[in-house]
Amino acid sequence: MSHPAGGLTMPTMTTLTTRGRATRTRIVEAAARLVHLNGVAATTVDQVLEEAGAGKSQFYHYFGTKDDLVEAVLEFQAAVSEGEQTRILEQHPGWDGIRVWLDAVVEGQRRADYAGGCPIGSMAAEMADRDPELRVRLGEAFERKRAALEHRLRELQDDGELDGAAEPEGLATFVIATLQGALLLTSTLKHDHALAQAVGETWRHLVSFRR
Amino acid sequence: MSHPAGGLTMPTMTTLTTRGRATRTRIVEAAARLVHLNGVAATTVDQVLEEAGAGKSQFYHYFGTKDDLVEAVLEFQAAVSEGEQTRILEQHPGWDGIRVWLDAVVEGQRRADYAGGCPIGSMAAEMADRDPELRVRLGEAFERKRAALEHRLRELQDDGELDGAAEPEGLATFVIATLQGALLLTSTLKHDHALAQAVGETWRHLVSFRR
Repeated sequence: MSHPAGGLTMPTMTTLTTRGRATRTRIVEAAARLVHLNGVAATTVDQVLEEAGAGKSQFYHYFGTKDDLVEAVLEFQAAVSEGEQTRILEQHPGWDGIRVWLDAVVEGQRRADYAGGCPIGSMAAEMADRDPELRVRLGEAFERKRAALEHRLRELQDDGELDGAAEPEGLATFVIATLQGALLLTSTLKHDHALAQAVGETWRHLVSFRR
Repeated sequence: MSHPAGGLTMPTMTTLTTRGRATRTRIVEAAARLVHLNGVAATTVDQVLEEAGAGKSQFYHYFGTKDDLVEAVLEFQAAVSEGEQTRILEQHPGWDGIRVWLDAVVEGQRRADYAGGCPIGSMAAEMADRDPELRVRLGEAFERKRAALEHRLRELQDDGELDGAAEPEGLATFVIATLQGALLLTSTLKHDHALAQAVGETWRHLVSFRR
């Protein structure tokens, strides 16, 4: 597990003033928007600073290189995505939590007009073979979402609501994979038909183990 | 359905001499390798020509712009991927064809050392929101693979080997989505545990409709 602001060689969130934190956050959020829509390679530091209304000296105060910024973007996107998953699973116990979370993923794509797909998945597709350090962080981000789902499935199994023959680890991997692929299809096809179908079949497979 | 060499504004395969075809193919294959590993934005025409051992004038003879080359790379990758799917489904009738095809996808990743993920999926993740024309082509490539699988599932249903309540269209979308996501996880995690788990659960869901 990595802390959302951990692992940076530059000043981290905890050592910054309130104003410094706001500036750093503004830069990261601007970068996150551009990276999500255009990809890492096609996003320049200059574009990010223009979008954020910040200057070069501010950038170099908070980030040593573009790589540092890209890592901060991943931490930001992972924190948003895991935060939503955690909130939903806490608010909705049992099978409901999984269903509400899946629906929220579909609804999120609709709200975003099918632009960009999964922010973490897109970064992984572009960067996994180009940046070994970022690749490890991307893998950790996927793994945390997978583990949260596995945890819920194990609870259901312990409570006798999931068949004892079901494999929570494999099922959780399967759900994350299906969502990632369905989000990719959706951002390519620009409608949520494929996402709704894939999530529908995924849910059908999960509840086939419901007891 | 688009022909593998269709849609180019430059000389197409059919109007080229044998030697011209060989040069063009060498450039496209070199570009396909680089784009698969590094992405579209990070691949330059100069890198491609160096990798292909070809010159600038040859490039501009066959391709007007980098965009034309990228489209040719997609056509090449789609032809390879669809060719393998078609060959397997023709050689293995019934349920076997689907199982052998899924196994071939897993095995292909192992052979590639988990590098690059699905060549078409990676291009889609990077380019879907950046190039509307390429996005449409990418969607068509996904759709052709999905349709081939749906066709097999409908045959099984007609033969009474797939439950009448199963939905071939949705199931085919679901399989393509799961594979895309599992390939993305695999190229991020650099082992095929996730792919094997996701494909295993996908197959389990499919055969739950076997009659």
